[in-house]
Amino acid sequence: MRGDAAVPARTLIVKAAAIEFAARGYEAASLRAIARRAGVDAALVHHYFAAKADLFAETVAAPIRPDRAVAVILRGPRDEFGTRIVRFILEELDHPEARTRVVTLLRTAVGTGPGSRLFKQFLVREVFLRLAQAVDGDDADLRAALAASQIAGMLMARFVLELEPLASASVDELVARIGPVVQWHLTGYGAPPDPG
Amino acid sequence: MRGDAAVPARTLIVKAAAIEFAARGYEAASLRAIARRAGVDAALVHHYFAAKADLFAETVAAPIRPDRAVAVILRGPRDEFGTRIVRFILEELDHPEARTRVVTLLRTAVGTGPGSRLFKQFLVREVFLRLAQAVDGDDADLRAALAASQIAGMLMARFVLELEPLASASVDELVARIGPVVQWHLTGYGAPPDPG
Repeated sequence: MRGDAAVPARTLIVKAAAIEFAARGYEAASLRAIARRAGVDAALVHHYFAAKADLFAETVAAPIRPDRAVAVILRGPRDEFGTRIVRFILEELDHPEARTRVVTLLRTAVGTGPGSRLFKQFLVREVFLRLAQAVDGDDADLRAALAASQIAGMLMARFVLELEPLASASVDELVARIGPVVQWHLTGYGAPPDPG
Repeated sequence: MRGDAAVPARTLIVKAAAIEFAARGYEAASLRAIARRAGVDAALVHHYFAAKADLFAETVAAPIRPDRAVAVILRGPRDEFGTRIVRFILEELDHPEARTRVVTLLRTAVGTGPGSRLFKQFLVREVFLRLAQAVDGDDADLRAALAASQIAGMLMARFVLELEPLASASVDELVARIGPVVQWHLTGYGAPPDPG
């Protein structure tokens, strides 16, 4: 793509990123390698995209940016992480266009292509692992995976399987039902919960 | 297919069932209509398949039969429903061949074909709704859908996304972590859990 003056540098970077992510996975791909592949200076990549997560979100046309919400959620009370991430995701997806795109992404994530690995690495690393690490305790990676499993199941049930009445339930109702479960997973309890 | 003496009646019935399920969905399909489509007497269908669930399981080559486990689980303590269904599913799928088939079924379930609707109707009606109805409380259908969402997310994370370390975790560890959550959903708590 180098030297193609008809294509804006930003477009070259996004195309190079898509190839680099597919080839190396989210974690191993670097902004430096993406710049090299696009034939631009690394500083130019940083000019357009502050972080690898921003570039990834653009390559998959991510309908929402849970990684950005995490920065806000981390500044709040630790015992509200679960309900706040569930509320953020459900509220942001409460629009027809966002729903359509998330269904496409979810189908990609469970498919056999490289999109599956990418999606998983991105969400775990930029969202769930950061929340789990901010909660005291060992095995943050297992806690992150467990929290991700409930969020993935919620999205599948609501948007892909359209499992009623969960699919039509209000955001508030689902936050009340599923938020505590995600908090439970992030906290890493292994004993039966006592609902009091 | 009527009158094709070269094809065993049982095979005719399973083929007719696959067509009938795809055409009408799990709930609306009847053993009587399947018999008619196969060109056999309804009594012959009942001779080979005691219930619609058995015929459905055969048409999708179901690797495990959670609907059968439910009958056993329902005879046990109500507060163990969650952990027992999680343990049954994970233990039964703890074999390479079962894993392979469940991955195929899960990909079918999130696909766009008629398999998606069928799979969902079967699991909710024969497994989760029966557990949720056996626990006191209103909105059994929402509680069933919530429990199904966590199970679906667990299976996705462990077998399709292969999200580590959840994918390699022991059955006991996952029963301890996820069983209480499924119980929570089945019971229908809407307030934050108190881990005691």
